[in-house]
Amino acid sequence: MPLRIGLAQINTTVGDMRANVDTITRIIGSAKDENVDLVVFPEMCICGYPPEDLLHKPKFLNDNETALQQLAAETDGITAIVGLAQGIPTQCYNVAAILENGQVQAAYQKGVLPNYGVFDEKRYFTPGQTPVIIEKDGLRIAITICEDIWNLEWLDSFFREQHDLIINISASPFNAWKNQKRQAILADCSRHFNCPVVYCNLVGGQDELVFDGRSMIVDAGGNVVLQATEFCEDLCIADFEIRDDKVTAINPISPSCHLDEPLDEIDEIYQALVLGTRDYVRKNGFSKVVIGLSGGIDSALVAAISVKALGKENVIGITMPSRFNTSETQSDAQVLAENLGIKFHTVPIADALDSFSMTLGNIDGWNESGLAYENLQARIRGTMLMSYSNQFGWLVLTTGNKSETAVGYSTLYGDTAGGFAVIKDVPKTRVYKLCRRINEQGEIIPETTITRPPSAELRPDQKDSDSLPGYDLLDSILKNYIELNHSVDELIEAGFEEATVRQIIALVDRNEYKRRQSPPGVKITPRAFGKDRRMPITNRYTP
Amino acid sequence: MPLRIGLAQINTTVGDMRANVDTITRIIGSAKDENVDLVVFPEMCICGYPPEDLLHKPKFLNDNETALQQLAAETDGITAIVGLAQGIPTQCYNVAAILENGQVQAAYQKGVLPNYGVFDEKRYFTPGQTPVIIEKDGLRIAITICEDIWNLEWLDSFFREQHDLIINISASPFNAWKNQKRQAILADCSRHFNCPVVYCNLVGGQDELVFDGRSMIVDAGGNVVLQATEFCEDLCIADFEIRDDKVTAINPISPSCHLDEPLDEIDEIYQALVLGTRDYVRKNGFSKVVIGLSGGIDSALVAAISVKALGKENVIGITMPSRFNTSETQSDAQVLAENLGIKFHTVPIADALDSFSMTLGNIDGWNESGLAYENLQARIRGTMLMSYSNQFGWLVLTTGNKSETAVGYSTLYGDTAGGFAVIKDVPKTRVYKLCRRINEQGEIIPETTITRPPSAELRPDQKDSDSLPGYDLLDSILKNYIELNHSVDELIEAGFEEATVRQIIALVDRNEYKRRQSPPGVKITPRAFGKDRRMPITNRYTP
Repeated sequence: MPLRIGLAQINTTVGDMRANVDTITRIIGSAKDENVDLVVFPEMCICGYPPEDLLHKPKFLNDNETALQQLAAETDGITAIVGLAQGIPTQCYNVAAILENGQVQAAYQKGVLPNYGVFDEKRYFTPGQTPVIIEKDGLRIAITICEDIWNLEWLDSFFREQHDLIINISASPFNAWKNQKRQAILADCSRHFNCPVVYCNLVGGQDELVFDGRSMIVDAGGNVVLQATEFCEDLCIADFEIRDDKVTAINPISPSCHLDEPLDEIDEIYQALVLGTRDYVRKNGFSKVVIGLSGGIDSALVAAISVKALGKENVIGITMPSRFNTSETQSDAQVLAENLGIKFHTVPIADALDSFSMTLGNIDGWNESGLAYENLQARIRGTMLMSYSNQFGWLVLTTGNKSETAVGYSTLYGDTAGGFAVIKDVPKTRVYKLCRRINEQGEIIPETTITRPPSAELRPDQKDSDSLPGYDLLDSILKNYIELNHSVDELIEAGFEEATVRQIIALVDRNEYKRRQSPPGVKITPRAFGKDRRMPITNRYTP
Repeated sequence: MPLRIGLAQINTTVGDMRANVDTITRIIGSAKDENVDLVVFPEMCICGYPPEDLLHKPKFLNDNETALQQLAAETDGITAIVGLAQGIPTQCYNVAAILENGQVQAAYQKGVLPNYGVFDEKRYFTPGQTPVIIEKDGLRIAITICEDIWNLEWLDSFFREQHDLIINISASPFNAWKNQKRQAILADCSRHFNCPVVYCNLVGGQDELVFDGRSMIVDAGGNVVLQATEFCEDLCIADFEIRDDKVTAINPISPSCHLDEPLDEIDEIYQALVLGTRDYVRKNGFSKVVIGLSGGIDSALVAAISVKALGKENVIGITMPSRFNTSETQSDAQVLAENLGIKFHTVPIADALDSFSMTLGNIDGWNESGLAYENLQARIRGTMLMSYSNQFGWLVLTTGNKSETAVGYSTLYGDTAGGFAVIKDVPKTRVYKLCRRINEQGEIIPETTITRPPSAELRPDQKDSDSLPGYDLLDSILKNYIELNHSVDELIEAGFEEATVRQIIALVDRNEYKRRQSPPGVKITPRAFGKDRRMPITNRYTP
């Protein structure tokens, strides 16, 4: 009899132990219905990932344990592997517990703790020292957790016994092209140990992170033989049996997803943005969102993503024209709202702006010609949206992209005011590609929105290109500086013009304070602003 | 001849290698003038602490090395111990370099890397494995860095040779009562090894942290024999010589500071707030600050601190009355400004408020009776202050205390709008004590400001006590929940009323999103909001 394994790729919520246990219980039931012998859940599925400093609360760890015992009671006739935090705050482990016949049969403690990028696991966990190998129907199965398997050298010295199969439970966050990297890591591992790797990843959004799922099974030759769907829950099943040559063979039971046609970069970013937005809004208890529609491309993209994430009935668009807004952008905002089928309101800011500016005249030196007056318009709009948010319970989505977030081309408490910054990690050049992709099945985002030169419309005839280099150039410099940590000298050596490089880098460094007060948003690049890149605000370094 | 050691307690700036090298060079000169043989500087003094992800830039590490070589050239006839980051991003050490006769003679790599609270050293550094003991004038001196000495068990197993003296270079951030803890740690260490400990700490503000200095020398019996001043730069000197009984004796040369009368809690918090504010403002290139003066106690305290930090000519007070502000609070704001001798402006918000509210009426359902209208007033004030900030280059200081920051009794983009939140970690009960202390030498803060029941004055007859328990009770619950991580059950067991506990804790958890978008401010408690307490926003945990 082969061993039937199910990969339960579920969407958990941090701290909601009751709901997570319910989900796990339900999937254990489905797995039993499918005659699964061993069902595998993601890393930390009991408490959600990452729970951050909740791990410092003794009761939180007790609650993990209580939930584990509840789940153990569900395992008559099936084995389940679930992830949780176990211990006391000063000695806590990231654990994969093996449940069987109502009991906790074994517990593997994660050995390699990531403490880079968005990860702080050494803040919370003690590394485990002991391999756990369980035997099921003649197969010796080695248990690992996420990062363990990314360090083949460590894994090689860690395993002391032979095994026929490796299971890895993960909470591996998305960025573009990450899945290719994961496949390569898993292939290396399976070939090295000459056995299949069964990889179960979390799915869902948690603050800035999106877990993309794509759990998979890789055979002993390094080939992906089965992959779960991307960006949604799934239960993926296969049978495992030792062949005569002692190598474990795999027989897929559930259909494989997208193995022949993996998502391209733009599609996977789009899906990550949709899931990240949906989960942030819903898991924080909101149903409706409001977006300031300027007629520009950024707010158009955010609106389209929101409609996909939440449904058109849950998205409200508001345009807030001043005398600097052209009739073209106003009309584009309206057409967009019509194309998306969302509610649309017009709230002109002229009266509030005039009254505000008059009042500001109480202090000598106030004037309407500079940056302060431009920022004032953005702050009036931000305050309008927040007022409606408070009045009607709508979450405000902000619309700044990564390029402008990087250089501070935004008004703090103005266009940065809101609960979630959907595209804060999406460079402007990718914003264009996403809009083009969205329009492939018919025009949603007005063509003029895409082709018009970008402008903040805070003074007559303003263009982004007045203050910034073209976005192709800007995004190249930003990628080199932010993601690759290149210095000014390296950028110049790479062929960028020195004055431009120095201007852009100074802007990035100087605007850390704005980013620190801006809302969270979905990480889609290898290094997003946020936990990924922790820069001092007070910083006189010249790179 | 005894060995003369100088403790150079200096104020560095993160990333400003040139200025830091200049400071170190200047103090080496002063030390030579005082016939010092060995001058000791704080941890990471070359690049400032904490440099955070600047450590991921290869050029930043090269620049540390270049600065080190420059400093070595200054060490003819003197030995200097300086702190820096050394290596490459993937293998970087937190180092104490020993400079002598123009050369780097030795380098000690920190062994114990703190990765809790505000610290992330395991994100950046590889732990050192090798003790460094240098010999000077017959004294064998063991070199350590900060956390090394907080782990006596580790230190005991680490040292392989005898030594007559321990030097510790530190960047140990302030919180109330921390110095007593440090003294105890150093006393334990000196007694354990039966030798003096020479402890050189950083001084100055860096974003949310204040380093309080108070470098000290502890004799072999655990007694503090010399302490540098608190919260400012100092050069502290003593002679060391081995007695006949082989124990190292200390002869203080420079006068000891405050050994008999250590600062009490309120004084040290006050000085921390002053230094933290001064350094944040100045190191970020601002000279003037603006504060919204409501006539309430929080803004009064922030104004008094700012005047002490920056001088009265650099502080501007603005009162922004609405029809809900009483004449008493308006008059208190004016009296405060007069007492402090600062510029004072009145900018009434009625017109802007009316015009705004009328415009908001463009969407059905807007009304002036609820929380949205209250928040609108606060946001109009925030926008006024930010407009003046943009127009005149003043940094806005916000005035929220820890108690209201904890429960979210504030308006995002309203009273939280600004560059630095001076008292964000000061509980309201401490706000009162600080104001009383400030008034001891004569009334600065109007007595009525202190005695009037606190109110946000956003609706008629509003009082803080309408929505919150008394501040004594609130601060007790908050301390137990935030600093001690007590659960609801533990709080109830400690005698707090269940309904109140549940209300307060729900407010704390629910308002994480507001704190995440609020400006940085000085940490003065053992656990501040910020790097100290990393909570998910999306969090359904019930504590």
